Amino acid sequence: METYRPMLLFLLFLPSVLLFCNSADAKRYPFFPGFINAGLKQSSEYSGGGLYETRFFTQILDHFDYTPRSYETFQQRYLVNDTHWGGKGAPIFVYTGNEGEIGWFARNTGFMYEIAPHFKALLVFIEHRYYGESIPFGGKEIAYSNATTLGYLSTTQALADYATLIIDLKKNLSSEGSPVVVFGGSYGGMLAAWFRLKYPHITIGALASSAPILQFDDMVSPYTFYDIITKDFRSESENCYKVIKNSWKEIEDTASQPGGLDRIEKSFKLCEGEGELVEDWISSAIVYAAMTDYPTASNFLAPLPAYPVKQMCKAINNPTAGNDTFTRLYGAMNIYYNYSGTETCFVTVGSDEHGMDDGWEWQSCMEMILPTGASNNESIFPPSTYNYTDQAVGCQEYYYVAPRPHWITTEFGGHDIRRVLKRSGSNIIFFNGLRDPWSGGGVLKSLSKSLIAIVEPEGAHHVDLRFSTKEDPKWLKAVRMKEVKIISRWLEQYYSDSST
Amino acid sequence: METYRPMLLFLLFLPSVLLFCNSADAKRYPFFPGFINAGLKQSSEYSGGGLYETRFFTQILDHFDYTPRSYETFQQRYLVNDTHWGGKGAPIFVYTGNEGEIGWFARNTGFMYEIAPHFKALLVFIEHRYYGESIPFGGKEIAYSNATTLGYLSTTQALADYATLIIDLKKNLSSEGSPVVVFGGSYGGMLAAWFRLKYPHITIGALASSAPILQFDDMVSPYTFYDIITKDFRSESENCYKVIKNSWKEIEDTASQPGGLDRIEKSFKLCEGEGELVEDWISSAIVYAAMTDYPTASNFLAPLPAYPVKQMCKAINNPTAGNDTFTRLYGAMNIYYNYSGTETCFVTVGSDEHGMDDGWEWQSCMEMILPTGASNNESIFPPSTYNYTDQAVGCQEYYYVAPRPHWITTEFGGHDIRRVLKRSGSNIIFFNGLRDPWSGGGVLKSLSKSLIAIVEPEGAHHVDLRFSTKEDPKWLKAVRMKEVKIISRWLEQYYSDSST
Repeated sequence: METYRPMLLFLLFLPSVLLFCNSADAKRYPFFPGFINAGLKQSSEYSGGGLYETRFFTQILDHFDYTPRSYETFQQRYLVNDTHWGGKGAPIFVYTGNEGEIGWFARNTGFMYEIAPHFKALLVFIEHRYYGESIPFGGKEIAYSNATTLGYLSTTQALADYATLIIDLKKNLSSEGSPVVVFGGSYGGMLAAWFRLKYPHITIGALASSAPILQFDDMVSPYTFYDIITKDFRSESENCYKVIKNSWKEIEDTASQPGGLDRIEKSFKLCEGEGELVEDWISSAIVYAAMTDYPTASNFLAPLPAYPVKQMCKAINNPTAGNDTFTRLYGAMNIYYNYSGTETCFVTVGSDEHGMDDGWEWQSCMEMILPTGASNNESIFPPSTYNYTDQAVGCQEYYYVAPRPHWITTEFGGHDIRRVLKRSGSNIIFFNGLRDPWSGGGVLKSLSKSLIAIVEPEGAHHVDLRFSTKEDPKWLKAVRMKEVKIISRWLEQYYSDSST
Repeated sequence: METYRPMLLFLLFLPSVLLFCNSADAKRYPFFPGFINAGLKQSSEYSGGGLYETRFFTQILDHFDYTPRSYETFQQRYLVNDTHWGGKGAPIFVYTGNEGEIGWFARNTGFMYEIAPHFKALLVFIEHRYYGESIPFGGKEIAYSNATTLGYLSTTQALADYATLIIDLKKNLSSEGSPVVVFGGSYGGMLAAWFRLKYPHITIGALASSAPILQFDDMVSPYTFYDIITKDFRSESENCYKVIKNSWKEIEDTASQPGGLDRIEKSFKLCEGEGELVEDWISSAIVYAAMTDYPTASNFLAPLPAYPVKQMCKAINNPTAGNDTFTRLYGAMNIYYNYSGTETCFVTVGSDEHGMDDGWEWQSCMEMILPTGASNNESIFPPSTYNYTDQAVGCQEYYYVAPRPHWITTEFGGHDIRRVLKRSGSNIIFFNGLRDPWSGGGVLKSLSKSLIAIVEPEGAHHVDLRFSTKEDPKWLKAVRMKEVKIISRWLEQYYSDSST
């Protein structure tokens, strides 16, 4: 797998790869919330000290087969906080871990910590197989070496892991009667929703935050993702949008001139030799600023001020920046990449601090195929189309196994979701913030009385799950209050159903 | 796998194995509707001529993994009858095949044929992987050689096969809008119910006939199965019950005497050398007569008269039979094994005409573990207890992989079913006839307005699915009428939901 890093770059930096190729049919790969590390040296807001206790569960490799190999085991990590647990019969709140080390998700899901006392809930955060320390085959070297070992990294296996672990945990606590509510954001939110749909005997309800479960097949236009980002920036300032939109050509023109890359490196304070990937670096900042356009200062993907999109546009529109596009753009980049003010020069490729890239690259090739990356003429990014065939070929050439682009909708549905789920599902909250580019693939209208969409125009990527702050706007407090009320109803329903 | 046949015998003939071992802790294995071949030379009631057209679908070996091996394919057989299909958008009725060649199930599921004209439905019968002609790895020799290849025979894979095939079929028919209703009896009924629960986006409802989905873990007493058989015979005649109950000791005593087996062979007209398994042979007749205690002459498991239990008891109670237990019992056996009058002597092991034994032996070892085989002092069979540990050890020694006794309830639930499904499931009919020993593991009370139990005291194993006859009793006609009404409601609901 010698071509590993190059492909990863494609995954991380879709928009600018297209620019460099200068072709609408260039190979492209999807990305997802996980890919957020461009140029970041991140320090965690919460270190985990006191937040949880780490445990391990012996998990089997393959739940659905009975081949001798399926019986191989690995240690699955999970984090527990029982500070407020009411004991036997009291609720258990489980975070269905996504593509990264679980501590990071725990530290960024303060909502669960903050509601635990009210519900006397036990908190459990389960790490997704093949991420963090939950690696089969003794470690990443073998687990990630090729499809023979990587082949067991799939959503259905992950959900079955959660089912198995939760049942065992409840048994060990002698608390089989405890209702379980699952929580998740982004891919973790998809897992939470699917877990409620597939394992209703194990969980009474799911809070699926920013879960684009409809971003598969042809259910959502591949233009949606960039359209939303475009709208985010344009809503702040038409000029800001135009400066960014027009910058791509200027960067390309400059880069193609002798000494152009030098000029670019100087303009953007890139470390030496980093100029070639400047467009990836800028694109990432734009995409992830939109995703994490939180109303308060945060440090999820990067240390950022409140409303980073607004701040970046402010920098671009700053009259002291003069007329130079690069100077204006640099101001915006400096907010995204250097809000803490500690960077002396920037690198364009991040460190994958949370161990997400390798696993998500595989998952997004094989089954988690969320069409994005198309840009129309109005887009803040250069125009491009979506061509799945090229992506599939690239994945197959890389892994030597073929993607299964329709498996997710075969297994979990999605088409015609209202008709289907209003008769066969219940107790899911779908939260979406409309500033989040992934909201386009979310469930934006309630499907029934108990399949409830909460849509917040000002919200970004799973903002509801974050620790609260004193500066939280009213709408965010209201969203969380509503979620608490709905979860209370599920629990009341459960205890009432159980007593009859 | 040199111990193959001996173990199969255990599987086939649980009750008498216990007798011979003369120990309540002897090894025992569960059996299921599939194991019905003892001593039968069966001719099918319906040959299949004109009933269906045979097709094949290229199915992948493993839906849940992405290892290179998972991409191996096999040809999955399915049968189609489009005589009455209304075309694009009209309903598709799918039989979710169970443990045997699919033609046999099609020929014994006349209900689907008889209601097809009314609903203008396309009929599809899908063969279960590893049965009939739907064998991976090029054929049974390799597929069944050991757990390395047999490991892909599992319920979850079978359900995913059905999902994949149905989606593809509808696409090929350009009839994606057709509502799909699934049907199944026995294990096929369990698959139908689980398919509706797990794939509600693919089927709008399921008729699960005689599906003991609660016969797992400790949800149902392992005594239930034999208790029901005991009740069946006892309800016909106390004397009949007593003759059978007391016969086991007499057989054992006779067999242990010099020349005893000869006497047994003569008494029961067994072919030479068949005496050793006489108890298996008698037990099977009792078990399967109870299961197929249909109100009309039938030929599902054997050519039988109407109400075979009553007929067998009549033979036992026949005053011309004298006082000899063996003569009386022989009369009953002659009804079960020789109703067609063509047998000159009996063999005790059947021919597995429908290719069920090898596959079900594996499935019932690995995951389809339905506790049965315990007998209390009142039982028509000798007293015995249920000891799962011994069974698990036997399976592991045989296949070199460990059973997963709690997987079915982990994946499909079952515990607390009313609380769970009334909020998360809909549109399933659970039919059970109370004379069927498997009814003890069935859903016998409706769980909600749309999860409807139809319970018929006089009914036997999936009697509702059979072709109707002029002699059908009123209650059977009423059951089928009710099922048709419920299915009509699902379809109306679907078309109404789809139009809004």
